[in-house]
Order: sequence, then C-alpha cells, then structure tokens
Amino acid sequence: MSKLFFRYSAMGAGKSLDLIKVAYNYEERGMKVVLFNSSLDTRYATGAIASRTGIEKKAIPFTNTTDFLELYKTDFHEKYISISCILVDEAQFLNKLQVEQLRKIVNLYQVPVICYGLRTDFKANLFEGSMWLLAWADNIEELKTICWCGRKATMNARLINGEVVKEGEQIQIGGNESYVALCQRHFSEGKCRT
Amino acid sequence: MSKLFFRYSAMGAGKSLDLIKVAYNYEERGMKVVLFNSSLDTRYATGAIASRTGIEKKAIPFTNTTDFLELYKTDFHEKYISISCILVDEAQFLNKLQVEQLRKIVNLYQVPVICYGLRTDFKANLFEGSMWLLAWADNIEELKTICWCGRKATMNARLINGEVVKEGEQIQIGGNESYVALCQRHFSEGKCRT
Amino acid sequence: MSKLFFRYSAMGAGKSLDLIKVAYNYEERGMKVVLFNSSLDTRYATGAIASRTGIEKKAIPFTNTTDFLELYKTDFHEKYISISCILVDEAQFLNKLQVEQLRKIVNLYQVPVICYGLRTDFKANLFEGSMWLLAWADNIEELKTICWCGRKATMNARLINGEVVKEGEQIQIGGNESYVALCQRHFSEGKCRT
Amino acid sequence: MSKLFFRYSAMGAGKSLDLIKVAYNYEERGMKVVLFNSSLDTRYATGAIASRTGIEKKAIPFTNTTDFLELYKTDFHEKYISISCILVDEAQFLNKLQVEQLRKIVNLYQVPVICYGLRTDFKANLFEGSMWLLAWADNIEELKTICWCGRKATMNARLINGEVVKEGEQIQIGGNESYVALCQRHFSEGKCRT
Repeated sequence: MSKLFFRYSAMGAGKSLDLIKVAYNYEERGMKVVLFNSSLDTRYATGAIASRTGIEKKAIPFTNTTDFLELYKTDFHEKYISISCILVDEAQFLNKLQVEQLRKIVNLYQVPVICYGLRTDFKANLFEGSMWLLAWADNIEELKTICWCGRKATMNARLINGEVVKEGEQIQIGGNESYVALCQRHFSEGKCRT
Repeated sequence: MSKLFFRYSAMGAGKSLDLIKVAYNYEERGMKVVLFNSSLDTRYATGAIASRTGIEKKAIPFTNTTDFLELYKTDFHEKYISISCILVDEAQFLNKLQVEQLRKIVNLYQVPVICYGLRTDFKANLFEGSMWLLAWADNIEELKTICWCGRKATMNARLINGEVVKEGEQIQIGGNESYVALCQRHFSEGKCRT
Repeated sequence: MSKLFFRYSAMGAGKSLDLIKVAYNYEERGMKVVLFNSSLDTRYATGAIASRTGIEKKAIPFTNTTDFLELYKTDFHEKYISISCILVDEAQFLNKLQVEQLRKIVNLYQVPVICYGLRTDFKANLFEGSMWLLAWADNIEELKTICWCGRKATMNARLINGEVVKEGEQIQIGGNESYVALCQRHFSEGKCRT
Repeated sequence: MSKLFFRYSAMGAGKSLDLIKVAYNYEERGMKVVLFNSSLDTRYATGAIASRTGIEKKAIPFTNTTDFLELYKTDFHEKYISISCILVDEAQFLNKLQVEQLRKIVNLYQVPVICYGLRTDFKANLFEGSMWLLAWADNIEELKTICWCGRKATMNARLINGEVVKEGEQIQIGGNESYVALCQRHFSEGKCRT
C-alpha cells in the first residue's frame, strides 16, 4: 500500500535537502519522480528546488489553482507508465482541495506522495496545507532542528529588523522580514538571538 | 525539558488502555499523576477512564469551560508539590484555549502533559482539540489500529443501522450511532464490514 | 508487504498489556491471531500472557527448540487459512534461529509478526533474541517507561535485597532477585530507589 | 538531558548528507560541532565527510584505537568551552569500547552524540558498532531508502561483477566489490537489478 507522508519541521531544518535526497535515491535505482514546489517560494529560480547547501533539482511550481489529480492523470499517468514517487516542497502552501487531490492519487494510483512543509506560521497558526496533511497523512514524521539554545525548535518566528513580530499577514511577499526557528519557550518569550 | 505529547489514533486503538498503563508506570514509582477525561464521554461512570478490557482509573471530567492552567496552579501546584505527569483522554474535545493552557503548564511548570485523542471525525475533519495539539505538541505519536481488511486504520466512520453516514453533527449524544475505524480506501468507499 | 516488528522496552513498560491490546484489536475485527510467550516466563500460569493489570490471554509457550516456521506451516497454515498476525512476548528469549524462522514467516507467508521484548540484560548486554530482532526487524519501535527520577528508563537493573548487582547469569530462575528499569545515569551509578 | 542517537540505514540512504545537514544547523546558530568519520572510509580524502551530492565537511578520522572520551576531555572540553554536538559517520566501524566512550560523554558532559551507520553487513550480521549502538542508544531512528522494486531497503548486498556474494570478510579493502541496498525479499533471493 502506497502512503501519503507529511514531513514537517520548523524553518531551516533542511526539508528541501531531504526532499532532494529522496529524489536522488529513486533516480539512482532507475525510477521516475516528480517534484513540485510552491510558486510562492521565490528564494530560487522558478522551477527548481534548492537547498541552502547549494544543490538543486528541477521542480514544477504549483499555484493555488494547480489540479494535482488532473495533472497526474493527463500529463503523467497517460504519458509515462511509472511515476514511482511524487515529492512536494513547501507543502504548507497547498490548499484543502489540493491535499484531497494528493490523497486521491495515493489511493487510486498507488503512488507514494511525500510532502514537506512547515507546521505553523509566525503566529503559531497552522498553514492550510499543513492542517489537512496532519489530518489525512498516513505517516506524520518530524524533521528536527534546533533553537539557538540547543533545544528542539518547533516554532517559527518572524523577524523585522531583528525583532520578533506577532502581527501581519500569514504570507508576506517581498518584505524585509526574515524567519527563525525557536523552541517553545523562546517563541513564547519572543527571545531571538540572531 | 518536559514535553506536550499528542498520541492520536482512530477509534478502538486502545488509547484509554495506553493512558492507564502510563498512569500505572508513574504510580509504581511513587509519582503522582492527574487524569482528565471529557464529560462528553458517557461510556463510563462520570469521573473514570476505562478501557474495553475492563480496567479503569479515576479521572477528573473536563468540560469546555474547564481552565486547566488555573486548576493546576490552585488545586495541584499549591497543594501538592509534585505532580509528575498530566494525562488527558478524549483530548479531541479540548478547545483551542484549553490546549494553550496545557501548553503553558508544560512550559512554565516543566510537567509533561500526554494527550490521547482521535485525529478526525466521521466527515474526515479535524476535531478542535486535535487540530491544536497537532499544531503545538512537541511529539506527535500514532497509536495504530487496523481496518477489517488488515491495513492500518486512520479514519473513523459513523454507522447508523450498520450503514456508513457522512451527514450530521460532529458530536452526537444519545443517538443510535456507532463508530468504526477504517483504512483510507474503505473510508472513501464507505465500505464497512461489521 | 507484511512486516517484522520489534517493540522493545525496559522492564515494566507494559509490553504484555500492549500485546494483548493488539490481539483484541485483531479479534474484534474477526481476524485470528496466535500468541506466543516464553516457557521461561514463570510469572503466570503456563500458556498465558498476563499483564500486571490483571487481564490475560492464552498463549503458546515457546522453548529454545520450538520451530516457529514448522509450526506455522503445519499447525496453522494447513489447518486455518488465515492467521492475520503472530504476536511474541518475551522475545528476548528467542534464539538466532528462531528469529530467522519468524523473518521467513513474514517473507514467505506475508503475515505480520510483532515481537515484544527487553533490549538489554542487567549487565547491559543484548539478549540473543533482541540482538537479531534489532538486526532484522522492518520496524524497531520503543515502548517507553520511566526511571524513579522521571527520565526515560532504558536499562534494566537486577536487585538482590534491594541492591543493584552486576554479576551473575543472564537468566536466573527461582532466585530472590527482582528487576527495575532505570535511566542511563542511575543505571551507571547503580542508584535504585525502590 | 542530552541523548545518544543511532540513525541507521542501508547503503545509500544519505546518511552523510543528513549528518552534514545537522552540522550546518548547529553552525548556523553559532554552535560548535565535532565530526568524526572512519579511517576505513576511503571514498573521500582523509579528514572529510562528503555526500554523493558533492557537498562535504571536515572530519576527524577515527581508527579502532581512538579514545573518544580522552579526546573529548583533553582536546575539546579543556580548550573550547562548548561543543554542542558530536557527529559520527560510519559508526558501524566503532568498537564496543568506543560506543561506551561516547555513551559516557553523553552521560557525564551532557553533550548530544549522533551516530550514523549501517545496521548489518552483506551477510546480514550486525557490525560491532551498530550492535552496541542498538543496545545503548537513547533513540534509534531509521533513515529510509528503497530497493530497486520500490519497497523499503533494509539489507546490504555485496556485489562482485554484478553478482550478489555471501562469502568473504566483513570489511574488504581495495577490492572490486560494490554494495547495493535491497529489501528483505530480494536480499534473501539474492536478486539485484543494477
């Protein structure tokens, strides 16, 4: 039985690197994979997933109107016989409908789908994609990272001019903000040492 | 560092039994634990957690107005020096505020809190308590159970007269419905063989 | 694909109770399971697995000459069409050959085998059964328990007259010793507060 | 409480890449880490851990006479105040004494030690380092990879001229052999499609 995986983490845990590693593992064995990332992810050139270590791979950007099931049925399933795995980066930006589509791909076509994403935003609210992946994934797995204090980081703080802010839109584009992963305690205290 | 745990499962995975086991383990070592269960859980006498195997333990029933943090500070923390663990059954029925309170107990008093609950309801939507526990728990752990087909069951179907129904209130009290854990496929097909 | 599971823990984590719970889950769905426990386990009547909570279930005792594969092929496979799961308690007492047999049952007959056992003995050495289960299991899962200090217990100390001893046979029968689960630190310091 | 981690996998699961990722995460937060790899690992220049993706980091090579505890106490602990994490690659090549030393570093100095290694050799026997890490690690975690058939690979086959061999020394240096990760079934059948 193929499965829907949700591998969540805080910022900077190396989600993209892990995703690329999985893609390599399939390709080394002669299997085809399809990579998606969010068109909102403007860190890199459109159509690529890159890790901060420098390695990168081509990916199909998804927007909030992408129909994964339709895409799978037409572009992949009919043309290539065997996609062995679908990998989705920045999966927190999926909407409910899209998580349903990925769930159906797993159920109907028996192809594993592995989604990587943040769990919560800078206000500690779930992202839409993460919420439905946490609800429907067969396996929920954590990628660990650490706070500046050495403890496990599970929260994401937004910084503007080095200060933790708690107001603003969930997704902010083109601003001067940055993000940092903090442990529960330092997130609640708003203490960020970067 | 103490942690907030969310141990989720589908119906009938033995959550209450696991909770009772953890309570025994603490008490065997001379440590105090506090058990909570939902006042909505009318399977058993008020003020007790029981497993279908017959064993049971006393528990404090919580309603949607219970203030866990206040209760901890006044009834427990001031009177007894050392509560070693807080255990919450039927944690899907917690509301957002209550999960925040439990999160604060962990952060401020360094006492571990272990919550057991269902992940999704019979319409595949998250319960309020589960949603915020999935968002804020330090550790998310699955208790496994099986579908009638032998595969892992992750979904909960509501049955009325032996038929899977998909309409109705999330929480129904005093009706003639029952629940059964199904795998993804049999949940989506509405196929239940009991 | 069926799997070989090894669920290990220190003393008193509730392994037997967990095993019985899994058996109930299968039987509730109308599936057959077979339970084994070690003939060295003289805590209870021969032919039964019991938890300290009082609940118990029938089990087939295994000795070091039991051939699980032969037993499966003749006594189970030929007579009953569908054993859905094999559960083994006290699996640390299996020998290498027996773990191989269980591995083959999983591979050849596609029936899941779930083994519960201690990881290490009172001298911190692996038991034979645990060693090969750790080597060959598809999934290694920990059942947690706690030291008297509240930290996770991973080691098993032997006590004689309340004192931790580090000399003696791995398996001692009919003596006046008892066992207690300790964390790494208290095991290495030999500090036991019971 | 700091912990001893054992992250095991079959060949080619990306252990080195994961190790490097963890090192980056610590260093990004201004924390010092120490990396070790085996002097038997001649894939790369001495004194470096590299992943097949091309990224690499400096590491201290260990031999079977390296005393990790002595090294920690003298070279690290006295000179630098705060090593935040010790990372060991190819940890299957540690001997029992060395795993004991690492265990003591965790217990005495409260520094986390994360070991990456293979679980079993090409004959399905445990490596010495893996055996004692499986015995004494606080957390045992699997890094997954896949067989050519798409199932989880847990075994390592040795190939000579493209054929699976089952005879020979556990560690072979300078030969013409290669290794491939296989699932249980294809390992036992000796079927390798590369």
